[in-house]
Amino acid sequence: MDEYGAMAIATLLTDFGLDDYYVAAVKGVILSRAPEATLVDVSHQVPPGDVETALFLLRAAAPCFPPGTVHLAVVDPGVGSDRRLLAVAAAAAVFVAPDNGLLTPWLERGEVYAVDRPDLYRRSPGRTFDGRDRFAPVVAALLAGCRPAELGPRVDDAIRCALPPPRRRDGVLSGRVVHVDRYGNVVTDLPASWLGGGPFRAEVAGHAATVRVGCYAELGEGEAGVLTGSLGTLELSLRGASLAARWGVERGDAVRIVLESDHGSDILRHEDPPGAEE
Amino acid sequence: MDEYGAMAIATLLTDFGLDDYYVAAVKGVILSRAPEATLVDVSHQVPPGDVETALFLLRAAAPCFPPGTVHLAVVDPGVGSDRRLLAVAAAAAVFVAPDNGLLTPWLERGEVYAVDRPDLYRRSPGRTFDGRDRFAPVVAALLAGCRPAELGPRVDDAIRCALPPPRRRDGVLSGRVVHVDRYGNVVTDLPASWLGGGPFRAEVAGHAATVRVGCYAELGEGEAGVLTGSLGTLELSLRGASLAARWGVERGDAVRIVLESDHGSDILRHEDPPGAEE
Amino acid sequence: MDEYGAMAIATLLTDFGLDDYYVAAVKGVILSRAPEATLVDVSHQVPPGDVETALFLLRAAAPCFPPGTVHLAVVDPGVGSDRRLLAVAAAAAVFVAPDNGLLTPWLERGEVYAVDRPDLYRRSPGRTFDGRDRFAPVVAALLAGCRPAELGPRVDDAIRCALPPPRRRDGVLSGRVVHVDRYGNVVTDLPASWLGGGPFRAEVAGHAATVRVGCYAELGEGEAGVLTGSLGTLELSLRGASLAARWGVERGDAVRIVLESDHGSDILRHEDPPGAEE
Repeated sequence: MDEYGAMAIATLLTDFGLDDYYVAAVKGVILSRAPEATLVDVSHQVPPGDVETALFLLRAAAPCFPPGTVHLAVVDPGVGSDRRLLAVAAAAAVFVAPDNGLLTPWLERGEVYAVDRPDLYRRSPGRTFDGRDRFAPVVAALLAGCRPAELGPRVDDAIRCALPPPRRRDGVLSGRVVHVDRYGNVVTDLPASWLGGGPFRAEVAGHAATVRVGCYAELGEGEAGVLTGSLGTLELSLRGASLAARWGVERGDAVRIVLESDHGSDILRHEDPPGAEE
Repeated sequence: MDEYGAMAIATLLTDFGLDDYYVAAVKGVILSRAPEATLVDVSHQVPPGDVETALFLLRAAAPCFPPGTVHLAVVDPGVGSDRRLLAVAAAAAVFVAPDNGLLTPWLERGEVYAVDRPDLYRRSPGRTFDGRDRFAPVVAALLAGCRPAELGPRVDDAIRCALPPPRRRDGVLSGRVVHVDRYGNVVTDLPASWLGGGPFRAEVAGHAATVRVGCYAELGEGEAGVLTGSLGTLELSLRGASLAARWGVERGDAVRIVLESDHGSDILRHEDPPGAEE
Repeated sequence: MDEYGAMAIATLLTDFGLDDYYVAAVKGVILSRAPEATLVDVSHQVPPGDVETALFLLRAAAPCFPPGTVHLAVVDPGVGSDRRLLAVAAAAAVFVAPDNGLLTPWLERGEVYAVDRPDLYRRSPGRTFDGRDRFAPVVAALLAGCRPAELGPRVDDAIRCALPPPRRRDGVLSGRVVHVDRYGNVVTDLPASWLGGGPFRAEVAGHAATVRVGCYAELGEGEAGVLTGSLGTLELSLRGASLAARWGVERGDAVRIVLESDHGSDILRHEDPPGAEE
């Protein structure tokens, strides 16, 4: 695993918010021990304790970073307890996070280590800030050339988030809203390739869209449609306003797409037959 | 244009917000291809789709950066459509943004290129995230030594924002509120040099100020006044509270300053004659 | 003071917010003059003009950074007036801020200089943005090797914040809420070592907690307790919700802890005697 010798970039993803000193404390500890590191914020606005949102964001951001990046994610309701600290070597990167399901997508694909390196940890009066006192030193050690396998024993019983997979059966796609972004776009877990080229009816929160477009600008003003999002899954969007707000969509809502037929055509945009919407 | 060989700093200005993975994805792509780059956030809190606010912020921030800086601005309602991607070499920097008016201030003063480099673009499942898939690779290429002229053909038909210029006639200055900051200061587009040294009456949103000061601290508690802002234009401010909130001022509001006479004096602060305010 | 020759990291703490170009302008000026600097945000979300919050955040974050770090703090209601600009060499770092009490914790422990270097300052049309025009150039000079003593005369009359110290008398600890974090944890100024191991009753905002734990996860769902926070002072927390919101606690509120007895035991968690809470 010589590729880990040149680590230089660490990303940070937390629920610490931006009003407090917490993020800076973590960065200060990392830079004290790995002064050449480049630190990149993913987000610190994860809702407090929301492991699933952190997982979504990390899975979306990580593939954009170069090999050897260390990804630190601290959303950690169990801080200070005996929950483990994990380091997972996967996808040419190392992921560091509490053992609470946050690293689920990488557990199967990588080597999972339960970090046990008290010699690295920062001495601290309390047990409430492992991000500063334990996670940051571990990230700094990785950036300074420590190999994941030197951090602790390999384990195979890490906690996993139960993420129900999307399904398709009898011309019906069933999935979930996995994210709502700042523009009010509604990101689903349904692979874009499942939609085909025929007419459909996409339903969420009691509303429906029947138009497919390639990008937001192809929608008419105020029109809702379905498109292939930046993660390769289907996304619902409304031109000029927040679809999530207008339709009352929240993360976790069920999404159902009825494929009304499939002509195998590759037209990107078409109108529904008259009367398809009541 | 050898000055572009040593580019090392890129600034980022978007409407992506800070809750999402979007900013990190852009940074990851840039750092993957230009690992030595220094990335500086201007803001990611531009209201969604608000090209004019982005223009204001970029125009205010850019002059503070060293020669050779690459400024990336992605406020891009037309993402994925055939709107062009521009690179403008101007003011010893390069500005990269969609062709939607955001770069208006630099179009006259620089060389404008319509970027056409599919070889640089990132392969992606959708067409909704050009910031990651197209803009970031172009910025990385510039940081790695690519010259703007290598990005595509020079063009002269870039889209411009219609920014009505401030006017002065018959002792009346007419302008607009171009920005409201976090403190509630109201920034106008009126050059500070137009005010002269005599008595005046500055009107906005049905309220008026008649006092000029050099800095906020020279105002009395609760007093409103006019001063020379950090961009060289006139600014209205209220000591100890938000003038914008108190007076109900919004960006775009008209500002009118009546020069009641001009004694050519250089006094900075003076009182209105009695009865000037009804 | 040769340790100041290798300065490379500057932290930034302001009340500029994240919507504006202000933070970027400061960074651009620093990087123009010290291009190799590593810049770390502490926070820019300090409530406007709130010197005491800035002081708290800087005191909490600074010890995490390596020797030689330059800490810039700009919360500056007096910008443009004749209030002084201070540089304080203390704790193996340099602190730069307006002379308004923000640097109180370091004034006794370090060398205090009143910066007087117009040759460094940026020429500017107005006097409203010293962060960009004066503070940033001073930080850049320090990062480039300038020693604090070269910035201006040493002074001993810097303005101090009156921070009432916590007290203990007759088995009663009296302190204040010095911070409320994003999770609703309530941080006090009472040293954790004062609590001892016996039963107690901690009162704030008309509510009380009588349980001590080592970390948040040791509380039962919905239970309130006292623990040793990350700064070594006592903290009140509620499992699964914001204690500050639930109890209506705000910064500055009085905190009173009655030590009901002290058995000198080292039990971390115990129940109150029956009837202790009415």
